[in-house]
Amino acid sequence: MERYQVILAYDGTDFRGFQRQGNGARTVQAVFESTLRAIGWQGSSILAAGRTDSGVHASGQVIAFDLDWNHSTEILARALNAKLDDDLSVRHVQLAAPDFHPRFSAKRRSYSYRIFADPHQDPLRERFAWRLDSTPNEALLHEAAALLPGMYDCAAFGSVTYDGGTTVRKIYQAEWLRTASDELSFQITGNAFLYHMVRRIVFLLVRVGQERLSLQALKAGIAQEVELPPGLAPARGLVLTDVDYVSPR
Amino acid sequence: MERYQVILAYDGTDFRGFQRQGNGARTVQAVFESTLRAIGWQGSSILAAGRTDSGVHASGQVIAFDLDWNHSTEILARALNAKLDDDLSVRHVQLAAPDFHPRFSAKRRSYSYRIFADPHQDPLRERFAWRLDSTPNEALLHEAAALLPGMYDCAAFGSVTYDGGTTVRKIYQAEWLRTASDELSFQITGNAFLYHMVRRIVFLLVRVGQERLSLQALKAGIAQEVELPPGLAPARGLVLTDVDYVSPR
Repeated sequence: MERYQVILAYDGTDFRGFQRQGNGARTVQAVFESTLRAIGWQGSSILAAGRTDSGVHASGQVIAFDLDWNHSTEILARALNAKLDDDLSVRHVQLAAPDFHPRFSAKRRSYSYRIFADPHQDPLRERFAWRLDSTPNEALLHEAAALLPGMYDCAAFGSVTYDGGTTVRKIYQAEWLRTASDELSFQITGNAFLYHMVRRIVFLLVRVGQERLSLQALKAGIAQEVELPPGLAPARGLVLTDVDYVSPR
Repeated sequence: MERYQVILAYDGTDFRGFQRQGNGARTVQAVFESTLRAIGWQGSSILAAGRTDSGVHASGQVIAFDLDWNHSTEILARALNAKLDDDLSVRHVQLAAPDFHPRFSAKRRSYSYRIFADPHQDPLRERFAWRLDSTPNEALLHEAAALLPGMYDCAAFGSVTYDGGTTVRKIYQAEWLRTASDELSFQITGNAFLYHMVRRIVFLLVRVGQERLSLQALKAGIAQEVELPPGLAPARGLVLTDVDYVSPR
């Protein structure tokens, strides 16, 4: 029996999120565990770095499980991919220490969020991006993102998933990159994120870019001096891109 | 009654091609005509620039139809988009001359085709790209594409869809652009294309890039001196991007 560390990618559109629900819902965990059982796994639950919401995508979700397997990691990847649906795939397999836990061992998580501006629907992009009717003020988007890095109480961006947890998080990096003439990708890296936190941040930054929320109000909201407007960016634009297990320099 | 010229975009994955089939199959034409009827259209058939195959996408398909409409073109676009499914949308509406025909009036068509190299499935890209197991020789891809421009008999790349038609086509431009570190996009513009022609061309260029077909054999095949290996690139990588109605300079 060995512990395997696996990078998963999925198109979240047709999944009801990552976590198995017990009601037969098609989730990433349920589909993956059922495939794993088909190659002989007898465990009760895989371990995962993070539970992505319904509709959220991943290119770098990390999971782990214990398995008796007499072939190479590459053959394990191919065996699983041969059985998995088209919207879920194994990107990498490696052996891990017996105590490796994809969530508790993780030092940093990174997400990306794509937005574009177009008055009309665009079926070739909206599966993986949030369409805005008009172009946001890009300078304001950059200024708003620059308020984010640091270690502080992030309660304005979300809640903890269990009682008594802290809402202090460390954001290492947060910036907008231009990916096409009318498209931007927000990249954020933190030690960990609260429930809905990235979608909440993107919603607020876009509000600033649309000149519907001032930088001053965002700053005061982060400091919890004022209430920020409620809302979340749609799940479809969000991708969990990386989970890192080495401490940042 | 006015003639409207409309640019359509669609994710071809869940369509059985463009053309209405009469067997209830979900095609772009069938879905669009049914939406058009819902806003009062009483015609029998829309006109289209080209009939894309099952699974092929479009960002710039052009169609035309006659309609009594008392509002602006922008309101027509919004009325249609409000009713269309998520994988089909109106990108632009304009008034056209009464004799405008999207196919017969067209001077040039452009397509793009994305490929990437990865040993494992990638659910965030394979909807719109052809995955190759290993990286093709990029210099050979460029050399093969450089053989294409010109006006000549393209019978090696496909057949006409009606008896007695010519297989002579003019290719204005054909080149590979790098779109990511492991991804290339093939861009081709011609006066018109034979049935399956772009997918046939991409298949042959990739064969050259994989060093399974020599440049000399491709050249001799285009000249119809030798038979070229059979095969088509998958529909999923292909996008009809533009139809132009002005003569190229």
